[in-house]
Amino acid sequence: MTKIAAEAQQQTHKQTQSAQTKDKHLQPVKVGILGLGTVGSGTVNVLHNNRDEITRRAGRAIDVTHVALRDIKKKRDCNTQNIELSTDPFSIVNQPDIDVVVELIGGTDIARELVLQAIANGKHVVTANKALIAHHGNEIFAQAQKHGVVVAFEAAVAGGIPIIKSIREGLAGNRIEWLAGIINGTCNYILTQMQQYGRDFAEVLSEAQKLGYAEADPSFDIDGVDVAHKLTILASIAFGIPLQYNKVYVEGIRNITQLDVSYAEQLGYRIKHLGFARRQAQGIELRVHPCFISQQCLLAHVDGVMNAVLVEGDAVGQTLYYGAGAGANPTASSVVADLVEVVRTLTTDSENRVPHLAFQADALSTTPIMSIEAVESVYYIRMQARDEAGVLAEVTQILSELNISMEAILQKDRAEHANHVHVVILTHKVPEKHLNTAIERIEALPGIAENVLRVRVVDL
Amino acid sequence: MTKIAAEAQQQTHKQTQSAQTKDKHLQPVKVGILGLGTVGSGTVNVLHNNRDEITRRAGRAIDVTHVALRDIKKKRDCNTQNIELSTDPFSIVNQPDIDVVVELIGGTDIARELVLQAIANGKHVVTANKALIAHHGNEIFAQAQKHGVVVAFEAAVAGGIPIIKSIREGLAGNRIEWLAGIINGTCNYILTQMQQYGRDFAEVLSEAQKLGYAEADPSFDIDGVDVAHKLTILASIAFGIPLQYNKVYVEGIRNITQLDVSYAEQLGYRIKHLGFARRQAQGIELRVHPCFISQQCLLAHVDGVMNAVLVEGDAVGQTLYYGAGAGANPTASSVVADLVEVVRTLTTDSENRVPHLAFQADALSTTPIMSIEAVESVYYIRMQARDEAGVLAEVTQILSELNISMEAILQKDRAEHANHVHVVILTHKVPEKHLNTAIERIEALPGIAENVLRVRVVDL
Repeated sequence: MTKIAAEAQQQTHKQTQSAQTKDKHLQPVKVGILGLGTVGSGTVNVLHNNRDEITRRAGRAIDVTHVALRDIKKKRDCNTQNIELSTDPFSIVNQPDIDVVVELIGGTDIARELVLQAIANGKHVVTANKALIAHHGNEIFAQAQKHGVVVAFEAAVAGGIPIIKSIREGLAGNRIEWLAGIINGTCNYILTQMQQYGRDFAEVLSEAQKLGYAEADPSFDIDGVDVAHKLTILASIAFGIPLQYNKVYVEGIRNITQLDVSYAEQLGYRIKHLGFARRQAQGIELRVHPCFISQQCLLAHVDGVMNAVLVEGDAVGQTLYYGAGAGANPTASSVVADLVEVVRTLTTDSENRVPHLAFQADALSTTPIMSIEAVESVYYIRMQARDEAGVLAEVTQILSELNISMEAILQKDRAEHANHVHVVILTHKVPEKHLNTAIERIEALPGIAENVLRVRVVDL
Repeated sequence: MTKIAAEAQQQTHKQTQSAQTKDKHLQPVKVGILGLGTVGSGTVNVLHNNRDEITRRAGRAIDVTHVALRDIKKKRDCNTQNIELSTDPFSIVNQPDIDVVVELIGGTDIARELVLQAIANGKHVVTANKALIAHHGNEIFAQAQKHGVVVAFEAAVAGGIPIIKSIREGLAGNRIEWLAGIINGTCNYILTQMQQYGRDFAEVLSEAQKLGYAEADPSFDIDGVDVAHKLTILASIAFGIPLQYNKVYVEGIRNITQLDVSYAEQLGYRIKHLGFARRQAQGIELRVHPCFISQQCLLAHVDGVMNAVLVEGDAVGQTLYYGAGAGANPTASSVVADLVEVVRTLTTDSENRVPHLAFQADALSTTPIMSIEAVESVYYIRMQARDEAGVLAEVTQILSELNISMEAILQKDRAEHANHVHVVILTHKVPEKHLNTAIERIEALPGIAENVLRVRVVDL
């Protein structure tokens, strides 16, 4: 008998024991939720509405017994009957009756303390908090491993899309080469409106704020911070590296104009704001910025507030995962899937659980993260050039001196500056460092008004 | 202390034990593969090429130690050094050293015997065999449960796309409402070629056979049998019902002509061959047939040999999973993901594993499967009508008598029959039973030549 067969035999023994105590398994699992905002209410609703369906899957009911919230009197979008409400979240992580804590408070300070305390108390944790994981995940997972508990975070990336599970488990046989994600609904809504209706950035943003798709302070979304949090997490589980949020290159969509959206269209591309991570010989690229992507790529057809992640694995090739990236019920869908999984792993020895970051904690890699200057890319650049002989010659001279060859150069519509026209150049692949030098020198030309806009072309 | 906390404490105890025997966990898991065709060779290659990556994830190496094949002397697309080859697959399922058996022989006779024997021997099984699961899955899973082993089958549906895992675990919080899949690459390749290049069915089929995308006997693919196998499996895990292959309504793509593809396009649709399963008040629809789907739907843009599955859950809304549905490495990607999972669950008590059909075996539902006659749908019908006064009036009279109202009626190009034209009708939603009656009566009209073609419109 092999050692593993012996293990299996022990298993059988354990099964017999567990059959004897089967009624124990039928006890509902008790969940405490921290925070009863949109996602918290959604989670209470999904667990309540689909209780039978979930119990049929998990083999055990999952009940919310406690909820911590800021204002007990405020009206909520869910039924809180039979749930004990408290304004003190610590009373919940310290409550001995609770098996699993769901952290939906957000932010990184109190949330971190609460999660660490829950772990220290031997409770499993489910969270939708991308900032928390991106900033403090390494610490949190180390503590979780030490205490033999699971911290599940499917809801932290791309809302209802099971992208963490798909990469971490579904693609476990692959060496992941790269991934590209439309993972912020606000950015994608704005860019889609600009593309489909020829509208301006500022106008769409202000409408998105009115519709509730964008916050009053939209910088978290449109400057790429939110995407950087999510990309940090995706890159970790794809490549088996520690979470390294501070090494992500981040650029938002504020500089993209209607003109660029329309030129992209004419050149066979579409502008999407991506989180993009790629394995290279020199290290790993981690970058968040607007991209030109081919109209042939399925990602180009992911519109409005929807999210999608395209992943390239060496065995599987490209796979894509699409769905709602935010909202009460889609996010609750992932929270509940994590709860079901935690319920299943309650009796698994923690060594054989799926590792938090897909790879065993002691097998994470120290592959360096590349600086954006070291990245090579094809570029779209747009400038406003004085409409007279010689200006274009100076521009192309600069590019030629820096060995930047051009795929296309187009003189387009009249620019805002009197006697200026928009000039658009599509380069061949060059190191970003060289392009930076070129842009600096082009901007210094007397015939060029204002800054040069640059958008990276990503070949998916 | 709650009962579950007590469990957790037992866990901690088990962890201590398992730490003492930690070197045991580092022993590679030994895998025996039955069948060394395309997928078998791919699996050997992926396990070999990504051995480090896989070990870093699984916490234990996975080694192929034995392979059963028909012809030992035949040259293979993989390195079989260090692998013991045998022409007797039973010698492998009976080999005490092997921990997991990978069944890649295909078919339902020998494969069933081998899998049942492996299970009886206490071995876990990974299979890519959709026919086996669709026909004998109920029996196989019951035996697996009895013997406390896992039978994993991610590779049986949609090749490298982790669709089983996504539905079974990722969407575990949802009541699944329906799913629609492009899950046969041959059909999708043929329909894509017809749509994009205006080619004829027969011509593309013969080319697909030359390219190796279609078998010499293509009926398995183009008549929908393969899709029906996969839909049987998807519906089971989505709705928590037993596998019921013989209740699937199946129709292939042989009757779709270039004309229909082009009319679909003009009407804002695209023709795709779908496996479609939907929960209704009266039961569950399980149907495989060509469909008109809106060009706005992301599924309409899944082209060539690629696969995709669109799933609607009550909480998450629509999610889509896209990737290669066949081929050596994509399929091997799923086989290896299953192997990694089996390795992880070696020490899980079998009661708490993810159930084979997503729902606990004793919680499967007896919801009836609806007959296709009971389904309601919008229909595209095309007929060849004699080009003279009165014929159309007779057709619309029949429809009106059966309460079938029309969204559109178009008199199109000249038909093959002298003095006949193609008439295309888009109905409103009607029960299939009424449409059948209408078609029967229309075909009996003297002014109608040949059969009426019907394609169901699916609103996704």
